[in-house]
Amino acid sequence: MKPYRELSKEELLQLKTELEARYREAQAKNLHLDMSRGKPSADQLDLSMGMMDVLNSEANLKDSEGVDCRNYGVLDGVREAKELLGEMSEVSPDKIIIYGNSSLNVMYDTVARAMLHGVMGHTPWCKLDKVKFLCPVPGYDRHFAITESFGIEMINVPMTPTGPDMDMVEELVSKDPAIKGIWCVPKYSNPQGITYSDETVRRFARLKPAAEDFRIFWDNAYCVHHLYDDDQDFLIEILGECEKAGNPDLVYKFCSTSKITFPGSGVACIATSPNNLQDIKKQLTIQTIGHDKVNQLRHVRFFKDINGIHEHMRKHAEILRPKFEAVLDTLDRELGGLEIGSWIRPKGGYFISFDAMEGCAKAIVAKCKEAGVVMTGAGATYPYHRDPKDSNIRIAPSFPTKDELAAAADLFVLCVKLVSVDKLLESK
Amino acid sequence: MKPYRELSKEELLQLKTELEARYREAQAKNLHLDMSRGKPSADQLDLSMGMMDVLNSEANLKDSEGVDCRNYGVLDGVREAKELLGEMSEVSPDKIIIYGNSSLNVMYDTVARAMLHGVMGHTPWCKLDKVKFLCPVPGYDRHFAITESFGIEMINVPMTPTGPDMDMVEELVSKDPAIKGIWCVPKYSNPQGITYSDETVRRFARLKPAAEDFRIFWDNAYCVHHLYDDDQDFLIEILGECEKAGNPDLVYKFCSTSKITFPGSGVACIATSPNNLQDIKKQLTIQTIGHDKVNQLRHVRFFKDINGIHEHMRKHAEILRPKFEAVLDTLDRELGGLEIGSWIRPKGGYFISFDAMEGCAKAIVAKCKEAGVVMTGAGATYPYHRDPKDSNIRIAPSFPTKDELAAAADLFVLCVKLVSVDKLLESK
Repeated sequence: MKPYRELSKEELLQLKTELEARYREAQAKNLHLDMSRGKPSADQLDLSMGMMDVLNSEANLKDSEGVDCRNYGVLDGVREAKELLGEMSEVSPDKIIIYGNSSLNVMYDTVARAMLHGVMGHTPWCKLDKVKFLCPVPGYDRHFAITESFGIEMINVPMTPTGPDMDMVEELVSKDPAIKGIWCVPKYSNPQGITYSDETVRRFARLKPAAEDFRIFWDNAYCVHHLYDDDQDFLIEILGECEKAGNPDLVYKFCSTSKITFPGSGVACIATSPNNLQDIKKQLTIQTIGHDKVNQLRHVRFFKDINGIHEHMRKHAEILRPKFEAVLDTLDRELGGLEIGSWIRPKGGYFISFDAMEGCAKAIVAKCKEAGVVMTGAGATYPYHRDPKDSNIRIAPSFPTKDELAAAADLFVLCVKLVSVDKLLESK
Repeated sequence: MKPYRELSKEELLQLKTELEARYREAQAKNLHLDMSRGKPSADQLDLSMGMMDVLNSEANLKDSEGVDCRNYGVLDGVREAKELLGEMSEVSPDKIIIYGNSSLNVMYDTVARAMLHGVMGHTPWCKLDKVKFLCPVPGYDRHFAITESFGIEMINVPMTPTGPDMDMVEELVSKDPAIKGIWCVPKYSNPQGITYSDETVRRFARLKPAAEDFRIFWDNAYCVHHLYDDDQDFLIEILGECEKAGNPDLVYKFCSTSKITFPGSGVACIATSPNNLQDIKKQLTIQTIGHDKVNQLRHVRFFKDINGIHEHMRKHAEILRPKFEAVLDTLDRELGGLEIGSWIRPKGGYFISFDAMEGCAKAIVAKCKEAGVVMTGAGATYPYHRDPKDSNIRIAPSFPTKDELAAAADLFVLCVKLVSVDKLLESK
């Protein structure tokens, strides 16, 4: 196909007429499709139904250390849960605290703790005039919502194919003591599906922040969420790199089973240095007597070990892969060569990131919505919902069925074309 | 028995010799007993094992509104969980937010939210020079630990047989705008087992606090935790009273199933006014996508309705009642008439509160410990662990077996006698 911008005004107008006719046809189908959130589909959830059987009224609910998991106690999680999530986090169990049902909550509470109590004896952030966070963009809207809710100033750092722009990160972090953190989704990033390169991870581990209480918020949400068994991204383990670099306390690493078993009924954890763990537990013991140990036991007995998780994730991949490919193939087929958008083919995670022509994202999402297809709001992938180029759109292909997805992807590319044609006509 | 203080020095010295001999005998038994925390016993936990069967791999995990409880969503809890905990909280389901596994966590987060975000648009407490809480004493140590951890100044308010000294509460709250809250366990209070009278509840509802963002933290932890089927305390419902008094937003009411099913693996909730709910949800939606809905469903399907809970609680009472009575009968039999201590016979809850002679509590607890019986630390029932009279001791009779408890209670009264004799000898 010829790039759209090489078309004459007349060609564009004729194209517009054709596309509008097709859009009206699409509208007539009364679609009600949702590609807005990274929600597993019902058949993915069915994969974990066996977990409902592992603990019954005959089960022994004592953990490997003899603790009755039905009762109070054990602030940091039962031993075997720390082992399992330790394997998943690639750190030893003694660097793990197991939490409740969601890592978002753990991340929120981690920022809240720093605000109220400070990090390892430093001034609580709520007592400072200014606190700033670096936000690789495009990124995860719920991360940005946390920092925004605390009045933390967010600074955009562009993503590159190997992770955040590390020159910029190093420059900012080393000079400005008000910068206290950075949000990272280092593997199969949300929304681009980018995995940080070894060099990026090492540069993170070697950061020399001006603020001693600067922390990297390393949200390894998609650590085992591969789409291909034989073509996976690898991420080197950052806590080990930080130790080697003499920066042992630099990172809070977050992980959960939310998109492995049941989102909202899973188990989350934090992995970090002994100093940080001690600092966290001092506050955590006031906040709770302990998290849900029965659910920890349920997860461990279902998976047994990390191999059980990998095997389980292969089943997820079998469901997810065709959906990702359906959307990506539609993008390739319908938009390839038109130069009105670009996208990345991720090897894992939950999202496809689409960059439209500048100034087109909002209009495309609106057009989709008018025809019954809900996308994540344009701008959501940027702090304050402000995408300076109004270009990035996050596509979440997991929840709809394959047929629904085909219809939704068709409509999406149609809207991209229509809005792009309008945009190009503006300058003719 | 003759009161100890009427004994002569010689009589006391002889008594001391006898008691010391018995104490050495007790030490020789090498007891390892724990009456320190309000933990249910294993046979109480067994009562809920049937809950492990209500959801299996064949179960329909959709709630009554068709929501797939295995997936993300539903910030404030599934409909039927709000109905069940609404019945337990005696408010309509639309005044309920269902949380995760523990009400302690909900209370912590409620104070943390006020600290960081303020209450209904008022200045965040962390921005104020001074924040104070009223603390009815003796009270619950974990409440005091929360406010202490935030640097909130705690003011003791004495408990009376009808609840906190309301003259003092009214006086303080109406005059000092720095007083932002009060901790209450209004039914079968921790540790005394006192239930607030109707008049006390109504005076709470009619408070005219100097601070508009003053809130009553109403921890109704023992709402259905009766010991006797035919002799129960009744607590009038405070949210309704607040509405009648034109103070609808005055109360946060907390509740959970922690001592109904499995502590740490239960379901907690907050019940409050629509204004407060809206204020809470604004923050909660940033903190989490939702709590564990599968566990909510598990609880609802197990109990079906409030009658199921009441029936279940009768079984708990059958286990707890003989334990409470064993301790209370020992206190009556061994200490009655000696005037070296006083105690209340509670009709529910988890604790017995013992007031020793002034200056004796720490020594009694230490003596118990030396002979292998762990009590809650003396002072724990007061803010900052400072019992000004060094008098109050909390007894938690739920966890040991009946035989263990008999041994522990025997040792306890022995230690009370010994320490009291020593105390009386000091002034002879």
